[in-house]
Amino acid sequence: MTHTLILLRHGQSEWNQKNLFTGWVDVRLTEKGRSEAAAAGELLAEAGMLPDVLHTSMLSRAIQTANLALDTADRLWIPVKRSWRLNERHYGALQGLDKAETLEKYGEQQFMEWRRSFDTPPPVLDDSSEWSQANDPRYVGIDGVRPQTECLKDVIDRLLPYWESEILSDLNAGKTVLVTAHGNSLRALVKHLEGISDEDIAGLNIPTGMPLVYEINEDGTVTGPGRYLDPEAAAAGAAAVASQGR
Amino acid sequence: MTHTLILLRHGQSEWNQKNLFTGWVDVRLTEKGRSEAAAAGELLAEAGMLPDVLHTSMLSRAIQTANLALDTADRLWIPVKRSWRLNERHYGALQGLDKAETLEKYGEQQFMEWRRSFDTPPPVLDDSSEWSQANDPRYVGIDGVRPQTECLKDVIDRLLPYWESEILSDLNAGKTVLVTAHGNSLRALVKHLEGISDEDIAGLNIPTGMPLVYEINEDGTVTGPGRYLDPEAAAAGAAAVASQGR
Repeated sequence: MTHTLILLRHGQSEWNQKNLFTGWVDVRLTEKGRSEAAAAGELLAEAGMLPDVLHTSMLSRAIQTANLALDTADRLWIPVKRSWRLNERHYGALQGLDKAETLEKYGEQQFMEWRRSFDTPPPVLDDSSEWSQANDPRYVGIDGVRPQTECLKDVIDRLLPYWESEILSDLNAGKTVLVTAHGNSLRALVKHLEGISDEDIAGLNIPTGMPLVYEINEDGTVTGPGRYLDPEAAAAGAAAVASQGR
Repeated sequence: MTHTLILLRHGQSEWNQKNLFTGWVDVRLTEKGRSEAAAAGELLAEAGMLPDVLHTSMLSRAIQTANLALDTADRLWIPVKRSWRLNERHYGALQGLDKAETLEKYGEQQFMEWRRSFDTPPPVLDDSSEWSQANDPRYVGIDGVRPQTECLKDVIDRLLPYWESEILSDLNAGKTVLVTAHGNSLRALVKHLEGISDEDIAGLNIPTGMPLVYEINEDGTVTGPGRYLDPEAAAAGAAAVASQGR
């Protein structure tokens, strides 16, 4: 008996559009991002792939994406669970910086290490920064573990307990689960699910607004690689993500 | 120690606009209804009255209203609980009928009895009707108690257990609670909170999209009557509700 897991990266955000490092900064979707989210809901409805429960990050762009997709798919009423463990990677002191300027200033090697290194986080973001979440009420409960920077390995370490305790238990209760999250939190989950190596994960890019579907066994393993409901659009979207900053 | 309860009736729906009896039929907000919802969120933000938790019905128009208001108030990330016990009154065989035609066909006395009688429900809606919820997946879990018609007394009977067990416990945990629901489920709750008699409740009308605020004591009693954040607009809105069908 397998159950269906649907991963969905939020649509274009205001800072995707401006080409800024975002991380935990709580920006909203652009009009394009809203359209992408609604289109994702249409794909789910057309495929008859209707979520029974939603898991989102604590960030507005993922929540807006879920709300718009579920509205289009006529599933607004399903239960919702949220966790900071599904948040985007915290980008540390890079949050708020322009990607192209950062590439130019620090060079290709440092830029790619910050973006794609598995275990080297960017410099820490000071709590006094305007881009810090130190005073954000949504994170009051996690003050002891609230990150100030993260590499992908850190994301995996904080995400997997949530995968095991919350998402997998919903799947094993027979539910079709929708997870709306972020480029790097979804890369972390896909790495775990598909057993991608620490080296190869650098080459994986997840496009915005494209439902990615897995069939999950009871032990949490996958029956095969994930499949995008719209493979051609997903390939074009992934190529666009890979070229960011250029 | 008191805690803040905010009641919010959904904005104008497609069937409010068409002047049809709606009940459990799952229609969406109109553009006007979406604007009303966003304006309600602005009122909450301006008043510094920021919800810590949301309770909604299972109906899309209440969920859309909550999503839009919370987006405007920058509180999309709060936890959400949904229950059919917050749903609109089930209007029985009136669901889908035109209010003005019904008034003309059955006369003032029967019309007002169906709309405002405390303990006489309209005729039962047959499960074979296109306006029945017999095959709606969101109600699978409540099949034994799913109503086919309701009077206001029935709404009170199914709503109060949820008030006691879920909403009051969130208030007593120190949370500011937002409830987005419907004309009659909110009338039922206000009747309970303010101790309005079975006779006088017929004259109470709750306007769409207007936050109504109570301070609640630990035993579930109110410190005083509810107050609208925008009293003038609320009075005009209540008058419009009272004149429906005319």
